[in-house]
Amino acid sequence: MADSPNCDLKSLSPLQLFERVTEQGEKVRALKAGKAPKDEIEAAVRMLLSLKLLYKTTTGQDYQAGLPPRDLVLINNGTSKEEDEDFVDPWTVQTSNAKGVDYDKLIVRFGSSKIDTDLINRIERATGQKPHRFLRRGIFFSHRDMDQILDAYENKKSFYLYTGRGPSSQAMHVGHLIPFIFTKWLQEVFDVPLVVQLTDDEKYLWKDLTIEKSYEYARENAKDIIACGFDINKTFIFSDLDYLGTSTGFYKNIVKVQKHVTFNQVKGIFGFTDSDCIGKISFPAIQAAPSFSSSFPQIFNGKENIQCLIPCAIDQDPYFRMTRDVAPRIGQPKPALLHSVFFPALQGAQTKMSASDPNSSIFLTDTPKQIKTKINKHAFSGGRDTIEEHRKYGGNCDVDVSFMYLTFFLEDDDRLEQLKQAYTSGELLTGELKKVLIETLQPLIAAHQERRKQVTDEMVKQFMTPRKLAFEF
Amino acid sequence: MADSPNCDLKSLSPLQLFERVTEQGEKVRALKAGKAPKDEIEAAVRMLLSLKLLYKTTTGQDYQAGLPPRDLVLINNGTSKEEDEDFVDPWTVQTSNAKGVDYDKLIVRFGSSKIDTDLINRIERATGQKPHRFLRRGIFFSHRDMDQILDAYENKKSFYLYTGRGPSSQAMHVGHLIPFIFTKWLQEVFDVPLVVQLTDDEKYLWKDLTIEKSYEYARENAKDIIACGFDINKTFIFSDLDYLGTSTGFYKNIVKVQKHVTFNQVKGIFGFTDSDCIGKISFPAIQAAPSFSSSFPQIFNGKENIQCLIPCAIDQDPYFRMTRDVAPRIGQPKPALLHSVFFPALQGAQTKMSASDPNSSIFLTDTPKQIKTKINKHAFSGGRDTIEEHRKYGGNCDVDVSFMYLTFFLEDDDRLEQLKQAYTSGELLTGELKKVLIETLQPLIAAHQERRKQVTDEMVKQFMTPRKLAFEF
Repeated sequence: MADSPNCDLKSLSPLQLFERVTEQGEKVRALKAGKAPKDEIEAAVRMLLSLKLLYKTTTGQDYQAGLPPRDLVLINNGTSKEEDEDFVDPWTVQTSNAKGVDYDKLIVRFGSSKIDTDLINRIERATGQKPHRFLRRGIFFSHRDMDQILDAYENKKSFYLYTGRGPSSQAMHVGHLIPFIFTKWLQEVFDVPLVVQLTDDEKYLWKDLTIEKSYEYARENAKDIIACGFDINKTFIFSDLDYLGTSTGFYKNIVKVQKHVTFNQVKGIFGFTDSDCIGKISFPAIQAAPSFSSSFPQIFNGKENIQCLIPCAIDQDPYFRMTRDVAPRIGQPKPALLHSVFFPALQGAQTKMSASDPNSSIFLTDTPKQIKTKINKHAFSGGRDTIEEHRKYGGNCDVDVSFMYLTFFLEDDDRLEQLKQAYTSGELLTGELKKVLIETLQPLIAAHQERRKQVTDEMVKQFMTPRKLAFEF
Repeated sequence: MADSPNCDLKSLSPLQLFERVTEQGEKVRALKAGKAPKDEIEAAVRMLLSLKLLYKTTTGQDYQAGLPPRDLVLINNGTSKEEDEDFVDPWTVQTSNAKGVDYDKLIVRFGSSKIDTDLINRIERATGQKPHRFLRRGIFFSHRDMDQILDAYENKKSFYLYTGRGPSSQAMHVGHLIPFIFTKWLQEVFDVPLVVQLTDDEKYLWKDLTIEKSYEYARENAKDIIACGFDINKTFIFSDLDYLGTSTGFYKNIVKVQKHVTFNQVKGIFGFTDSDCIGKISFPAIQAAPSFSSSFPQIFNGKENIQCLIPCAIDQDPYFRMTRDVAPRIGQPKPALLHSVFFPALQGAQTKMSASDPNSSIFLTDTPKQIKTKINKHAFSGGRDTIEEHRKYGGNCDVDVSFMYLTFFLEDDDRLEQLKQAYTSGELLTGELKKVLIETLQPLIAAHQERRKQVTDEMVKQFMTPRKLAFEF
């Protein structure tokens, strides 16, 4: 059975196998062209078919001449299931797809709307500003009722922004910046007030942390948020543990939400079980309440029913689906939403960057050297195994983490497109692409660290003091 | 079958039946004494046995010469089950026994301790004061760790009192006064501070009420509580809806309790289901938190781990069993408890007085005339159906609501004993007993109304302002 390709071919990589199929195909063509003996041609064709079959078994893809195998990770894992493998809730993001979660499917599943070119153009017209790169590049890709926000805004009816963060460790990573970078842009271009919730109570409930530690993380994280450049006259940052005890409006809205949501509902939405503590079970109401302006009587001077817009990662949507369901029943307007994709882990877009896994994260406290080492060592590459292969077939930007990060942080659209083409064609090597990312991130993080140094305790206190914000409604 | 007593006897009342049995017994004795023919005596004995059997079937009791039937309500209901019929939780008190709940059984079921003569004597020695009538008469009948409170108190280590009320309607009834009358006495004789929780959030969650209405009830109820005569320098009254938004310590303790109690636990303790709202499910933590002095940083000047003593009706015990279970796990001392019996409804001790049923309640706002009418019309009587029967067999103090109320409100022990004997012997008629109660309650409620009138908004504000209380620990 020397003809069987399985004996010595099993150890080949998908790419080597692809090349063996290509070679064998050329051999068959040559034999046919040279009018070789019929049995010799038939043997070569049998070999070609066997090789193609082996290629398909290994990669899950049909062999196509000139098209080397895609989705290397999937192939290496010996699996090719791309369907229905995404798991997304506020605590876990997991997919088997190296390109990351299928966001179009998520829009259908969550019942939200795609941010399309029309909406982006409308935002541009309303604000008179070039849309943020996160909009241009589909990083904020989904929304709920953003058109209504714009309808009202165009009729001189304003809104406020609400975003938040669960302060799980002292150091934030670059992924944590995404909602804040975008929210800062929204605050600027729409000229609106902002409330930022630090859910230190949530972290206390979910993690093995003391109340004091959670609150300390909240205050430390507040400094990083302030360092993003928010307008002190238009921004209120609050820790739940702190603010719940200083606002009469907040608890009243929490208990209103808690009256209108059953355990059955939170079980369905968040997957809680009977063994979960009652703190977790009632927490969703605490994340819901800042969607209502009456939670901030000091901020909005007692003005109620101001429309709220929430920019957040799509994994937070379950909280706000619940909130939007409750809102009309407690006489409040539904908050509108802008959803972002997840920021991928260094190891690949199968999961999001997580502060609890230091190897998956670039922290805002990392030195230039640490940034360089982490990217070079851990950033998953869509490049080929050897320089020769890479030059020949090019890299895969769809799964390359360095390229993904550049879509988040490199402002210049033309430069990004050039990098994509050069990498895909094989002209640009993995190491070179990583160098571009390192050189983009190092000054960005250094500048953040510089701004953070200038955040004084006095400033933190001011940002975290409930007070009337500058706004016109 | 003329001999069968069942034909024309079935319609007789238990008392008439008792008299028929007595008559038949006398007839048998007379026939025997007169040496009547054997078959005539045998027929009379058969009739007597049939009558006794019918008596037992109807009343659930063996016929005893000279002892007329007891527990008329049970008998009239055609049931005699006295066992395991009590249902007690924070929302429902129901028993089939006209004497009320079997409190000895409740002590065993709840695992608390009986307040016995030794403990009462010890309280007398520790305070140098005659024990309150509620202690002398077993109205506060059960406790948890009261001996530890006294151990510490005797060693100059003090404590604070915590009690509360769910403000379900504007008017409180006399039953609502019981914990406050007793708490006021405890405050006086032990000279300790007191916190009073008004669970307006609970009422909002459980009833068809707005937040605003619940809070209004809380403030109105605060006036009645203040009118009980609490020391303004040692008493803090708070509405949850209000205080949760003004105290950093309170929410922190709530979330600590919420982290350490699962849905399974509250399901077991309070009977919550998956269809209950998450507000109800997490509420027990809000009633638990005032058991810890760190919930009141302003009151106790930041002093933590002060021992807490909770006087309350026994139906509130489930909250504090849960609290005592959690306390050591969050580094807090377990609160001690003093449990009272329920204040019976006018219609009888099968259920407690409820403000939501105006006919079952004497309100603190009732006029002298209303008090008189309600007692005369609705107070369940342990007297006999006719004056003749009453004179002959006497009344039953165990089921007589007027007599029960007098054990709560008549201070003079000798007078109460005289009334009991006179009523039981048939000397005192139901109308006369009711008159004593009316004359006891009318001035008591009038005096309360007078004191309440003197409670100004300024005083309410002062009582409800978090501030350092006068105490020495």
